Amino acid sequence: MTLRPARLLLGALGVCAGIAICTLYPTKSKAQSGNGQSQAEGDASPIYGIKIPNGYRDWQLISVKQLTGAGGKFKQLRAQLGNDTATKAFREGKLPFPDGAIIAALHWNEDSSDADNKVLNEGFPGIGLESFFAGPAVNVQFMVKDSKKYAASGGWGFADFTNGRPGNEALHKGCFPCHQPAKDRDYVFTRYAPTP
Amino acid sequence: MTLRPARLLLGALGVCAGIAICTLYPTKSKAQSGNGQSQAEGDASPIYGIKIPNGYRDWQLISVKQLTGAGGKFKQLRAQLGNDTATKAFREGKLPFPDGAIIAALHWNEDSSDADNKVLNEGFPGIGLESFFAGPAVNVQFMVKDSKKYAASGGWGFADFTNGRPGNEALHKGCFPCHQPAKDRDYVFTRYAPTP
Repeated sequence: MTLRPARLLLGALGVCAGIAICTLYPTKSKAQSGNGQSQAEGDASPIYGIKIPNGYRDWQLISVKQLTGAGGKFKQLRAQLGNDTATKAFREGKLPFPDGAIIAALHWNEDSSDADNKVLNEGFPGIGLESFFAGPAVNVQFMVKDSKKYAASGGWGFADFTNGRPGNEALHKGCFPCHQPAKDRDYVFTRYAPTP
Repeated sequence: MTLRPARLLLGALGVCAGIAICTLYPTKSKAQSGNGQSQAEGDASPIYGIKIPNGYRDWQLISVKQLTGAGGKFKQLRAQLGNDTATKAFREGKLPFPDGAIIAALHWNEDSSDADNKVLNEGFPGIGLESFFAGPAVNVQFMVKDSKKYAASGGWGFADFTNGRPGNEALHKGCFPCHQPAKDRDYVFTRYAPTP
């Protein structure tokens, strides 16, 4: 098994806000502790012209995911957030998503804490518990619904940012083709996680 | 290795909003698609008298986690959300958390989709990618900061709900002792996930 370079992987699958693998290796984010507000001045994604939306980290939780591969060498934890329009549509099961809906997909490399795991396994001996949490930020992706502006790509614009900088055109060309299999869900792979 | 019954596990570790294992087996939530608003009329947690806060599913994302055990038979995806007070404190690294801070921990059993994985592995052949997402809801837990009311438990009240119903007193007695190892982080295990 050969791992292709992260950039090549990105180019091949593009911006799958639902299930995409992106950069395989950890990269340090410019905004490690902020709420995303300060990132809106950056460059726009090629093809679609999308900038990082102000305050996206404040959006509502749609779901969480884990992506694994390479025999366990690649492990990401992921969260999908929605702005009000997207979240309302998810909750109502409304398809297609209305114009103005934006879905953000935040990706982190997994991290763990020996101290946390010690606590867990003292409380529950014999089960072999392991806890993993969101470690270094990898990238963030957006799907922006505008049925007129993005008519050629199912009504969605795509964007992928690493360290606040958008990926290149080749990467973004792969976005829409990758989302084609989810056409019957308006090209969105992510399902709304039930409220416990 | 023996798996103890879910309720016993709950009793032993209690309400660890940060790292707790809770019910081992999937349970169907009463509110699979709502935003939590309708659950506020339920019972309160024993000892602490905490009800499910209105609209907690709208709160901001603090972090995401995965908890595994039992040789892979037990796999949960988890999200921690914070109300405005809690989120602000996390972002500013402010300890102890101010009164009024509430942290919610949402737990789901992992699910996966062959169709999603097929898309991934057609895009990235040879890596053996697997995507997991939040499946059936398991339970939701809360930590509520009130330094006077909950002075005897580090200023925190605890609550654990399954299907909208609080766990019993024995379960809730375990909450604070379990959080003792995180005393230097004001009894909170969860760390704020960096903003990509």
